[in-house]
Amino acid sequence: MKVSLECVECLLIRGVAGIKRATDNNEVRFRAVSKLLELLAREFSPEAVPARLGTLRERLIKEVTGNPDPYFSDKKRSNALGKRLASQVEEVVRQEDSVEKRFALACRAAVLGNLIEFDIPGHDFSLEKLEHMLRNTKLSIDDSERILRAIGPGAKVLYVTDNAGEIAFDKILVGVLEELGAKVAVAVRGGPVLNDATLEDALEVGMDEVATEVITTGCDAVGVDFELVSKEFLDKYLGSDLIVAKGMGNYETLSEERMGKPVAYLLVAKCGPVARHIGVERGSAVVKLVE
Amino acid sequence: MKVSLECVECLLIRGVAGIKRATDNNEVRFRAVSKLLELLAREFSPEAVPARLGTLRERLIKEVTGNPDPYFSDKKRSNALGKRLASQVEEVVRQEDSVEKRFALACRAAVLGNLIEFDIPGHDFSLEKLEHMLRNTKLSIDDSERILRAIGPGAKVLYVTDNAGEIAFDKILVGVLEELGAKVAVAVRGGPVLNDATLEDALEVGMDEVATEVITTGCDAVGVDFELVSKEFLDKYLGSDLIVAKGMGNYETLSEERMGKPVAYLLVAKCGPVARHIGVERGSAVVKLVE
Repeated sequence: MKVSLECVECLLIRGVAGIKRATDNNEVRFRAVSKLLELLAREFSPEAVPARLGTLRERLIKEVTGNPDPYFSDKKRSNALGKRLASQVEEVVRQEDSVEKRFALACRAAVLGNLIEFDIPGHDFSLEKLEHMLRNTKLSIDDSERILRAIGPGAKVLYVTDNAGEIAFDKILVGVLEELGAKVAVAVRGGPVLNDATLEDALEVGMDEVATEVITTGCDAVGVDFELVSKEFLDKYLGSDLIVAKGMGNYETLSEERMGKPVAYLLVAKCGPVARHIGVERGSAVVKLVE
Repeated sequence: MKVSLECVECLLIRGVAGIKRATDNNEVRFRAVSKLLELLAREFSPEAVPARLGTLRERLIKEVTGNPDPYFSDKKRSNALGKRLASQVEEVVRQEDSVEKRFALACRAAVLGNLIEFDIPGHDFSLEKLEHMLRNTKLSIDDSERILRAIGPGAKVLYVTDNAGEIAFDKILVGVLEELGAKVAVAVRGGPVLNDATLEDALEVGMDEVATEVITTGCDAVGVDFELVSKEFLDKYLGSDLIVAKGMGNYETLSEERMGKPVAYLLVAKCGPVARHIGVERGSAVVKLVE
């Protein structure tokens, strides 16, 4: 998808927030903001892909501030909370008496992981509330049955993750996919970008215990940017039967170019432009298969 | 006052809103956003004055979109509502039995005018609610008694207005100032900028019926920018005994340079940077004399 006019506000606001996280030096902050404005002036056009601009922005922030991973501590905090909540959610999923039901609920769990903001403290996450959210969060689009039918035994699935914290919830769905007989390669980002999960986060939540393999995109891009991914990732992508793509960044990029592969998007449409592009209300939870 | 880092977000958001108001042409909108980003990249620095950046931004929007007055209809709507509400407020002020009490209440009315967003429909403004707001809106700083003492008979007061709509409330205070024996020159903006009141708006609310004279700043700047005002305005400013300055734009500029004149600021500190500069909480109503 391409940017809407309003994306420029979000691109700047998230940039300023990232710059503040990256450095306490006010002079450097102003310099980084100025460089970011220059970047946006150059790159913001009706043909731009928002996630691509996000990648350029995050690279600029890391370079100007000299901080290689501004969201490091957010990711740690998110993983800790994510693991704690996911272990409860997994118990609920395990209580279902068929793998088909476990799959449907695990899809909801993965979307729920995209909904929860793990890096914001003070949420109430009692087991009752979690189970209620898991069972009652309305899916505005629910293609989970079609996705289930697309997964035969031995199916090669590439599961592209989104954020740290959330990745603990992804592990539940990856486990059920493996249980269904699929061979799941989980792909995290190849380098720090925003609070997106990297290899460190995948290992922290034990993703390697359930997935057939854990790989990376080979780059620090938001989403799946085929101009930046590694040869290894591209080969894995092209050799897969189904792509599972979590979150908005993966949607923004893969909706532009998915190399003819079927993609199952699992996300919450947190902003107007993504929601409009999918055709749902802002804030909608979506399990959408594009074949 | 100078910008804070966070001002860049507001400068862009208000710019995008103005660009949307100014033109329906999406291509022109993107071009204007890009030019605005360039402008901010060039001008946004710790030494910049936010209102000055606002002036440059509004000039750019008018130029790129070819719309000389993007807020024209907002101003008309605001004046219509402002006049209706101000006539009720004026009756409440008139019921006070001394000119001193009328002055104190008229100061509050002027601040209330700065608080109300006249261009946003759907507010409830019953007479009861208006009178309640007038009497109970807390002033975090209230120098109205000191201001009263500064106004002798024949005192020359320059009253610099802020927005359309609000100007109908200013008229009440201007009337009481004249009643106190002051000679009030009311200065509106010399050309369209944001929803700030211009000569047309002053005449629309009948300001010329109560003020000794109505003049303009001679320019389309936000606030009082001594590099841009006309000779006529500057002379009037320098020949005045007291400046009354409404709203944040006038505060942002005059707090940088007030040419040694005593200034009475009447405003609501609607944003963090202005509130911090004054030393009050965000959202505070203020009647502040700086001598």
